[in-house]
Amino acid sequence: MQRFINNPDEVVEDTLRGFVKAHADILGVSPENPRVVVAASAPIAGKVGVITGGGSGHEPAFIGYVGRNMLDAVAVGELFSSPTAKSFFDAAKAVDAGKGVVCLYGNYAGDNMNVKMAIKLAAKQGLEIATVVANDDVCSAPPSERGKRRGVAGEVFMWKCGGARAAEGASLEEVRATAQKAIDHCRSIGVGLGPCTLPAVGHPNFVIEPGTMEVGIGHHGEPGVRIEPLRTAAEVGRDMAATVLDDHDLPAGAHVAVLISGLGATPLNELYILNDAIESEIARRGLAIERTYIGNYFTSLEMVGATLTVMAVDDELKRLLDMDVHCPALP
Amino acid sequence: MQRFINNPDEVVEDTLRGFVKAHADILGVSPENPRVVVAASAPIAGKVGVITGGGSGHEPAFIGYVGRNMLDAVAVGELFSSPTAKSFFDAAKAVDAGKGVVCLYGNYAGDNMNVKMAIKLAAKQGLEIATVVANDDVCSAPPSERGKRRGVAGEVFMWKCGGARAAEGASLEEVRATAQKAIDHCRSIGVGLGPCTLPAVGHPNFVIEPGTMEVGIGHHGEPGVRIEPLRTAAEVGRDMAATVLDDHDLPAGAHVAVLISGLGATPLNELYILNDAIESEIARRGLAIERTYIGNYFTSLEMVGATLTVMAVDDELKRLLDMDVHCPALP
Repeated sequence: MQRFINNPDEVVEDTLRGFVKAHADILGVSPENPRVVVAASAPIAGKVGVITGGGSGHEPAFIGYVGRNMLDAVAVGELFSSPTAKSFFDAAKAVDAGKGVVCLYGNYAGDNMNVKMAIKLAAKQGLEIATVVANDDVCSAPPSERGKRRGVAGEVFMWKCGGARAAEGASLEEVRATAQKAIDHCRSIGVGLGPCTLPAVGHPNFVIEPGTMEVGIGHHGEPGVRIEPLRTAAEVGRDMAATVLDDHDLPAGAHVAVLISGLGATPLNELYILNDAIESEIARRGLAIERTYIGNYFTSLEMVGATLTVMAVDDELKRLLDMDVHCPALP
Repeated sequence: MQRFINNPDEVVEDTLRGFVKAHADILGVSPENPRVVVAASAPIAGKVGVITGGGSGHEPAFIGYVGRNMLDAVAVGELFSSPTAKSFFDAAKAVDAGKGVVCLYGNYAGDNMNVKMAIKLAAKQGLEIATVVANDDVCSAPPSERGKRRGVAGEVFMWKCGGARAAEGASLEEVRATAQKAIDHCRSIGVGLGPCTLPAVGHPNFVIEPGTMEVGIGHHGEPGVRIEPLRTAAEVGRDMAATVLDDHDLPAGAHVAVLISGLGATPLNELYILNDAIESEIARRGLAIERTYIGNYFTSLEMVGATLTVMAVDDELKRLLDMDVHCPALP
């Protein structure tokens, strides 16, 4: 493995230590739980707490989205593994200011189970945790089974809009409803060109043959809908956009925000090359692009590939996207 | 090649098209030269123009640093090749508001030659171009031959400080002097773990054997000072910091800004793991870290590796680093 690591079993500890050193003005590790990252500003009186949690290896997700007007805390799991129920609970407790806490997370079995347990732990202490479960990955289940779909990079928009709504002073139910609307308005797709390796395993966790690509791949290498010959970026970008927009079924004239994320080892120039085709397809369908985010927003270690997320935006979501934010991962 | 590209000979055109679509609110391509990216705000009356230029494949450098309070324009070269003299000249002309233009670029033979020719072209039209040449890469020549050193990621600090000084309304000589001070206060080092491939060539342009790393590698795979067995991130980070600080020779108590950039295919979590060791070594020497920037700031296609830049900062440089900026590549 050509990687900058120490003990393969301590990648998360080492990452968190270097991360907190770099961003000590914005956040820190909870004194009560080394697997909870908390904003320096939290808890904020009169504000609903906003948290998430998930496996490590997706940096800057999840920890890079902690900060002012964004997430108040994140429960941190091992590489590609859910945080514990206790970490979700401790994250909620650390940011509760008496108005309740909303947990905005992705639809994975481990996360679902541990968040449910955290809700029970919290209820015993009189702390209410509301939830929104992200299901933006269109390739992980058909439209009729949207509840089975995974959460992927649409979570960034869910956190941004939910975090901003909480910063406006909204109630727990209002924040939950806005975050739910944000993720309901998102559709995402991933395309993989190369696998990644969990350092403690030492070999790739799946195979993508040279000359092929896996369409619909998940953030942990979950199989996509098909393996096909690697085509030009123009074709790949057009088809990614077509797939999410076919699922979205937006009226011409609708406004959208676009997020293209590398999966870890994809150079930025290639994301721009994809964007050329993606924005052309979006424009061809008569949609208006309000914002474009391109970079490494939600990754999978050193996987080669990219995800596209399209969120339909109304005036509320536009306003929330535009709110100032101070966290490591967003401008 | 597992890459998102179209015609390998048109990577730069395709990148620029997707880039401009994504950031049309900030910048565009010059109507007179498709290899010049110009800020939407330029030229700004009463302000010195600030430009740079360089080969493509280092995204977000150079084009991602165009924007308000940063660079006014960038001359864009082919992959890993200097822009033409005409592109440097056209970039200067596009941003000149009568106070002159400063070109802040890196020390490479092609860039040196073409900038010199651009200065002559400009002089004929009464346009003054001042220059600062970045030499921050400590491994590319000994301290006694600093003028031979290459410019690497320290250029980001040079652009930030020079761009901010120009935005304050400083004169051409003042902007030049501040940018020169910024780069004189920078020392950088690169470590490579894996090579990159120019799409039109189709195979890696150099080799790094598995289990080894190249210390002092350049942004185009220029040979480093030594090849050694790949060690732990703690050792690599400590040695990177030690090398730049030994060259820097700062008094205890000095304040510094730190920039750690991935080279394209290095996951963010590994940069954080490196940062843990880097900041420990900096602190061990009694230096105070004012700011830390970690991410893909200056890359080399899909090279695996990282660079470290340490800039000593005084009150002026701190003030300039803190000035608001609106460009694709910086928060």
